[in-house]
Amino acid sequence: MKARVYVMLKNGVLDPQGEAVHHALGALGFDGVESVRQGKVIELDLAEGTTEAQVGEMCEKLLANTVIESYRIEM
Amino acid sequence: MKARVYVMLKNGVLDPQGEAVHHALGALGFDGVESVRQGKVIELDLAEGTTEAQVGEMCEKLLANTVIESYRIEM
Repeated sequence: MKARVYVMLKNGVLDPQGEAVHHALGALGFDGVESVRQGKVIELDLAEGTTEAQVGEMCEKLLANTVIESYRIEM
Repeated sequence: MKARVYVMLKNGVLDPQGEAVHHALGALGFDGVESVRQGKVIELDLAEGTTEAQVGEMCEKLLANTVIESYRIEM
């Protein structure tokens, strides 16, 4: 079974990667870009029966730095 | 208007980041994880009227390395 975890920086946390992409897009002539935020998407191939709670525990312990990041799980 | 771009490594391309996460999950005692793939999610805040084709051009020129990565756009 597959699960997908989306990890994004919380609002208000500076996103240097997003800023760099935004700047580069401008330099390439893409003017209509107001802001860019970049995060991670983690695709997990799991044994049958793995619960969302277990995936949540993986997020809390490893996949997301919950001080500055928020995560969303798609089972 | 918002657009989201998902960038993942193409199948068959070695994913060292995914391997590292897989290994770390095992070390933390999460046994039921068969494989892990990690990619990027890029949230773009765009001027009204920006087309999917323009976002595609951003992907081709900057957001994805199309030699080893594939991308999916959500407008």
